[in-house]
Amino acid sequence: MSELNAITIPTYEEVKNAYLKIRDKVHRTPVLNSKKVNERAGGELFFKCENFQKVGAFKFRGATHAVGELSDEEAQNGVATHSSGNHAQAVALAAKLRGIAAHIVMPENAPKVKVNAVRDYGATITFSESTQEGREATLKKVVEETGATFIHPYDNPHIIMGQASAAIELLEEKPDLDYIIAPIGGGGLMSGTSIAASGLSPETKIIGTEPEVANDAYLSFKTSELHPVQSTDTVADGLRTSLSPLTFACIQEHVDAIYTVTEQEIIDAMRFIWERMKIIIEPSCAVPVAAVFNGKIDLQGKRAGIIITGGNMDLDQLPWQG
Amino acid sequence: MSELNAITIPTYEEVKNAYLKIRDKVHRTPVLNSKKVNERAGGELFFKCENFQKVGAFKFRGATHAVGELSDEEAQNGVATHSSGNHAQAVALAAKLRGIAAHIVMPENAPKVKVNAVRDYGATITFSESTQEGREATLKKVVEETGATFIHPYDNPHIIMGQASAAIELLEEKPDLDYIIAPIGGGGLMSGTSIAASGLSPETKIIGTEPEVANDAYLSFKTSELHPVQSTDTVADGLRTSLSPLTFACIQEHVDAIYTVTEQEIIDAMRFIWERMKIIIEPSCAVPVAAVFNGKIDLQGKRAGIIITGGNMDLDQLPWQG
Repeated sequence: MSELNAITIPTYEEVKNAYLKIRDKVHRTPVLNSKKVNERAGGELFFKCENFQKVGAFKFRGATHAVGELSDEEAQNGVATHSSGNHAQAVALAAKLRGIAAHIVMPENAPKVKVNAVRDYGATITFSESTQEGREATLKKVVEETGATFIHPYDNPHIIMGQASAAIELLEEKPDLDYIIAPIGGGGLMSGTSIAASGLSPETKIIGTEPEVANDAYLSFKTSELHPVQSTDTVADGLRTSLSPLTFACIQEHVDAIYTVTEQEIIDAMRFIWERMKIIIEPSCAVPVAAVFNGKIDLQGKRAGIIITGGNMDLDQLPWQG
Repeated sequence: MSELNAITIPTYEEVKNAYLKIRDKVHRTPVLNSKKVNERAGGELFFKCENFQKVGAFKFRGATHAVGELSDEEAQNGVATHSSGNHAQAVALAAKLRGIAAHIVMPENAPKVKVNAVRDYGATITFSESTQEGREATLKKVVEETGATFIHPYDNPHIIMGQASAAIELLEEKPDLDYIIAPIGGGGLMSGTSIAASGLSPETKIIGTEPEVANDAYLSFKTSELHPVQSTDTVADGLRTSLSPLTFACIQEHVDAIYTVTEQEIIDAMRFIWERMKIIIEPSCAVPVAAVFNGKIDLQGKRAGIIITGGNMDLDQLPWQG
């Protein structure tokens, strides 16, 4: 790991080694493109489809790597995390596949479909108050009682190394990309993606994208100072989290630009992809697509890869419904 | 073509030749499978994903072949059809790619999104009354005025030969299937599929599936007498049409069994596929899946291919919405 502002960020060598360890455990997801999408984008777009990943999201890559890196001694007490989203399912399945316990703290108001999905992977669920403090307090208690290792969803170098593998596969298949564009939530995917590209394809520009109403990474990047997210009122439910010092350091080191898009631009882009490509993508995935469709990035004559982060959503609550 | 009850049905040689003519013009769509879907099915299912075909449906295969078979003299007056569904778009695009005119008769109450899609492919649209008689009368007039060749959506051997190509590709990729299962609307896909399998994989059992409320093929097959469809009140909007004498003859010759499913079984199966496979499939495609999920076909230890017919639907009108 190299030093940057006293924070050690993962190196390209480390993410490459992580990929070699997990590649037989994750799906090698397809890279899809569409003539109609390209016509609208004004250039060539290649979608790395992590909606087809195990648990329906890229999060399985990082969780598999982080769970795999535990020593046998650590592993025997299992792993723990708090999440109501894709990370919870990812940790639950990664733990199940290693044959160890997973303790997942979920807010008491978590949607039943998400609770059931985590339970289906054999995890033990502990419900908490739905506030951040309530969740952290319950997690702390669970960790104390079980001795489980806490797997943070992004403030964890092993998670970042695992998430990098999506970009490694994308660049193996499409080595000559002008851009790679990804959404930024906590920054784990963006960090891993940018580190992978720095080693495999240093000419490729790395672009982050965010909802305008949850633009903590944009502000942090612009001011070189870590800003927490101010609002979580975005349809892109995967992007409501703040950067951590670790992911911010990665982004400062390797990302070339960050653009923001409006809620309506996100919803329009998401619907366009559903209608034209016939694949189900979460709102978070539509954020980079929206940036391209709305001219934030000029794609004329260019080729860009987009990491499609996941496809898990409530089909009773589609964002274009009144 | 071989003789059967005075109707000449296409032969395997003919469908093979049709495939060689169109294979560079159609997408070779992927064959997908899913562990979770297999767990529910109790056997292995392979989905031939024609939702990823050009125009979003297998109909482009038949239309490409039928348009391609016109002589230059016939072609100069263009082609015509009446349809408010996938066949309209398929004929429009196939004509555009051959550089000839397409005249599409659409009911005056056709959804705007479908009208626009056909117009985007450069077709000339003529609106008609929405009754079957109104549509046919308007089509007759258009054909008389333009000299265009009518391309029937299924009662046309060249259409059937083209539709067969999906099963040819499926069997090339998965040669050892115990079953191929498809939905039956007018019977063009089922006819082509069954002819393809009769030559490529005679051991494979060929199963047709239908909505219980639009069970004309089931009744016709059972009684050996052509029954028109009695009700069009099914969510599977691609399956509201009746068999023709030609498609009925193909089905009698080559299909092993036909099963029906309820509306609720169709909706449940469709939603399961959206949620677990992250692909958008039309209700019609869910009919064979529903037959498997509800025990009509025992898949224990077996491998079955399912033709996923298309992915075009109104995202404002999902069938599980109250």
